[in-house]
Amino acid sequence: MAHVGGPVRAWRDYTDGAPPPMLQAALDCFVEHGYHGTKIRTVAARVGLSVPGLYHHYPSKHALLVSIVQFAMRDLLDRCESALAEAGPAVEDRFRLLIECLVLFHAHRSDLAFIAASEIRSLEGEARSEHIAARDRQQRMVDEIIDAGVAVGAFGTEYPHEASLAIVTMCTGVAQWYRLDGALTPEELAVRYDTLARRALA
Amino acid sequence: MAHVGGPVRAWRDYTDGAPPPMLQAALDCFVEHGYHGTKIRTVAARVGLSVPGLYHHYPSKHALLVSIVQFAMRDLLDRCESALAEAGPAVEDRFRLLIECLVLFHAHRSDLAFIAASEIRSLEGEARSEHIAARDRQQRMVDEIIDAGVAVGAFGTEYPHEASLAIVTMCTGVAQWYRLDGALTPEELAVRYDTLARRALA
Repeated sequence: MAHVGGPVRAWRDYTDGAPPPMLQAALDCFVEHGYHGTKIRTVAARVGLSVPGLYHHYPSKHALLVSIVQFAMRDLLDRCESALAEAGPAVEDRFRLLIECLVLFHAHRSDLAFIAASEIRSLEGEARSEHIAARDRQQRMVDEIIDAGVAVGAFGTEYPHEASLAIVTMCTGVAQWYRLDGALTPEELAVRYDTLARRALA
Repeated sequence: MAHVGGPVRAWRDYTDGAPPPMLQAALDCFVEHGYHGTKIRTVAARVGLSVPGLYHHYPSKHALLVSIVQFAMRDLLDRCESALAEAGPAVEDRFRLLIECLVLFHAHRSDLAFIAASEIRSLEGEARSEHIAARDRQQRMVDEIIDAGVAVGAFGTEYPHEASLAIVTMCTGVAQWYRLDGALTPEELAVRYDTLARRALA
């Protein structure tokens, strides 16, 4: 099913919106060698710049990492908010579109998700606390829908807190195993995950 | 409930069985700085050895990483096999104890799990393919129980393959968020995860 135009299209569309070239080059290096294992001259060479040329845009390797995780979390949170805006007030719809949004993001943006999860340790100062706050905000979106669903009787789980953590990690875990050239499209996988997750909350 | 003696105790017991000191020192460094960001002299200093002294036991940083991931996967797979031996033939029991085993391991051994998952990229040659084979074996244990449960009508899911991946990633994801000083013991969490996972398969 094609989604054309406006916010409906936007949060499901991954045909563009990849990180800009310098961030993408740094992301590729971090995925291959880790943040600490990446030399700034490797990033510069990959994007066809001198080291001073790269530093003109990003003053340090840390600045590149910060920009990557900010890009990732902003992209994810913006898409989730658009998904919830499309869903409207019914808790089942909100849950379904939020799961779809999480699955699509982690299927399409597995490299961003991997670095945003594994290199929290390398974020310093405010960047670290901001990143953790963004992840908490993401988790709370799911918490709130599950709590609302329990309140109206849509979900029967006695463990809304652990259920929410389990469901978020199963969706973010898509980044660990899903391959875009595999048997299912991200959209098909999202439908199956929605079914599994709803049943888990029964 | 105390588990005393024999295989029953063994797979649930995390009071000892941590990696030996040199591996633990390397693990701590890898968790903090990543494999590529770790200097062998930092590992040696942490365990009170000279660099040649450490190299006497492990000839390279790579050898330390290989030993860590082998330790992790052997420990996990041994515990899972003991859990299944305890469970006997009934599919519901096999599923319950395997989920318990996965949750306990990832709650107690989050550092091992993090490095075994995030540093696959740093494993070279045969060590890499052996590690991937061990992870596949782990996944297949869950696949086989879910398939058997579907065959006998214990589980109703139409998506046994994706359900198994989702359940394994939700259990391994415990390593990402669970804290031993949190509200639930690993055993209490395991009971909740078993309930969630069984319902997901309904």
